Amino acid sequence: MSDRIARLREQLEEPLLVTNSKNVLYLVGFNSSNAVLLVDEERVRLFTDFRYIDAARAVPGVEAVQTRRAVLAELAETLSGRIAFEASTLAYAQFEVLQQGGLELVPRSSVVEKLRAVKDEGELDAIRRACKITDRVYERLAEVPFVGRTERDVSWDVTRLFHEEGGEGLAFETIVGAGPTGSRPHARAGVRTIGAGELVVIDAGCTIDGYASDYTRTFAAGRVNGEAAEVYAVVRAAQEAALGAIRAGVPALEADAVARRVVDESPFAGRFGHGLGHGLGLDVHELPRMSTETTDVLEPGNVVTVEPGIYLEGRFGVRIEDDVVVTADGIENLTGLGKDLVEVG
Amino acid sequence: MSDRIARLREQLEEPLLVTNSKNVLYLVGFNSSNAVLLVDEERVRLFTDFRYIDAARAVPGVEAVQTRRAVLAELAETLSGRIAFEASTLAYAQFEVLQQGGLELVPRSSVVEKLRAVKDEGELDAIRRACKITDRVYERLAEVPFVGRTERDVSWDVTRLFHEEGGEGLAFETIVGAGPTGSRPHARAGVRTIGAGELVVIDAGCTIDGYASDYTRTFAAGRVNGEAAEVYAVVRAAQEAALGAIRAGVPALEADAVARRVVDESPFAGRFGHGLGHGLGLDVHELPRMSTETTDVLEPGNVVTVEPGIYLEGRFGVRIEDDVVVTADGIENLTGLGKDLVEVG
Repeated sequence: MSDRIARLREQLEEPLLVTNSKNVLYLVGFNSSNAVLLVDEERVRLFTDFRYIDAARAVPGVEAVQTRRAVLAELAETLSGRIAFEASTLAYAQFEVLQQGGLELVPRSSVVEKLRAVKDEGELDAIRRACKITDRVYERLAEVPFVGRTERDVSWDVTRLFHEEGGEGLAFETIVGAGPTGSRPHARAGVRTIGAGELVVIDAGCTIDGYASDYTRTFAAGRVNGEAAEVYAVVRAAQEAALGAIRAGVPALEADAVARRVVDESPFAGRFGHGLGHGLGLDVHELPRMSTETTDVLEPGNVVTVEPGIYLEGRFGVRIEDDVVVTADGIENLTGLGKDLVEVG
Repeated sequence: MSDRIARLREQLEEPLLVTNSKNVLYLVGFNSSNAVLLVDEERVRLFTDFRYIDAARAVPGVEAVQTRRAVLAELAETLSGRIAFEASTLAYAQFEVLQQGGLELVPRSSVVEKLRAVKDEGELDAIRRACKITDRVYERLAEVPFVGRTERDVSWDVTRLFHEEGGEGLAFETIVGAGPTGSRPHARAGVRTIGAGELVVIDAGCTIDGYASDYTRTFAAGRVNGEAAEVYAVVRAAQEAALGAIRAGVPALEADAVARRVVDESPFAGRFGHGLGHGLGLDVHELPRMSTETTDVLEPGNVVTVEPGIYLEGRFGVRIEDDVVVTADGIENLTGLGKDLVEVG
């Protein structure tokens, strides 16, 4: 843990008040819904109420300080001087509470989130284990036919298989998008019955030690027509091109552009309606961003999803998503699944 | 929906920018991760990007306006004048984005949340259905012995039973606290094996149409000793006293005090370490608050949890929680379970 605090201190010009609970968890390993960390040059103070104070006192390397339940109100009264705060996640009303004490408050964004974007070995190990479980879930998922079952029923299979394979829980609500449902990238699993000849987009993941996996595979429910197979082939080519372009030092924008070019040079130009991917860790969506607008540059130890898609409004969609570690000369692909279109009947 | 907008307009002194996605869902029935509503005296405008604009155009009673993905940045450029915003949930950095356009911004808190605290018949119906499912899950849960199984294994039973009984999903991560785990009110289900003679606190719920149930029952894994039975009896008496005290017009603080007095006049004084309950709806925790610090007064149509507990640090805990609708002269208890201590072996 102390290595993380040391890396954080290099980024600080003033003490940082850490209010985002995932950031508190990352920095000192303390998981609570009501804890605030104050990191300055000498000390790391962990403020929490009576419910969590005993657990806080057991955290190595921090000074635990008991406050009343309104932690920020008490800090406003007791702290002074110039303090940075996490502007991307602190609500305006909480900022007002802090401000009432006369603190000189400096908004900063994504300071801890940028550290979290580069994973250490312990974190990579957790994500690798989550991915191995996810591999088995997707393999087993294809063993039972989809046709005639509802999207929700298949989604329940995903839940059950993650449990059987040892996932702690789902990383996010599973997406099962059959036919037209699949043409909306963020549609959830619904009551729609899967028909023969439909493509079925399944986007799911689990957590291990709090770290997420996030896969997508598009399955064929029985034999699909030529256009569906063609779209699938373009998405696969786009994804493989992007995987080949990713390495440390590459602007994430360029990785996105490599995949987008493959789609835009196909008959399905303009139908890749989202970014190439995103960082993955304690949050399912974290830094770095990989999209048409990002300024992030890929670094060794980033874990990112690579997930181009093509969406034909009202008809069907295709997305293929792997989880990869960025290395100095390329990637370590954590996703052990093949990419041929799997027919599940 | 328009009745909700009418009730909101009565609360407004200036146009309100609704950024909390649950509030957008409540007001106009639109569920999106990137949509902002602006409600003024004449119009309801729904701003969203190209991914959701077609769905937005299908929403009755609103004027759908397509923006780029950075919705707030575009609104900062195009809106003018005095506008209220949701200060409890808008992040400071997003406030800064809005501010850059020269808007006169007025922080307001809990405006829509206060409307949400009073449920209409459609909402009550969804919560009633969620509660009926939860009744059956708790009844079936007690059919399989707990002793020798892990907390996580029992938690999985809860997940599976909610699926079998027709819940859309879990309303929150299930708590299964056996023996000492149960003495920490917010502990999750862990790898601990449940021993004979332990009390097991199970706190779980599901959603129907997005509305949550939230129950707790404390079970006996085999025969428990006299002290455990005594604690259970005190919590049961505290809960029944609170249920008898709740009706419209009662300050929520007083309902809490009624339950707290029963605990504090027992040998377990001071061991009821949280508030009596909370509002329940689209969020598992919403208004009204029922605690030692609240100023909320109960109203007809509030749906609240009633959940006193006693926690003996490092040994065991007991909590009993029902979901009730507040009425003019008392309550409608949505929880159909009995309260005798159930022995599950």
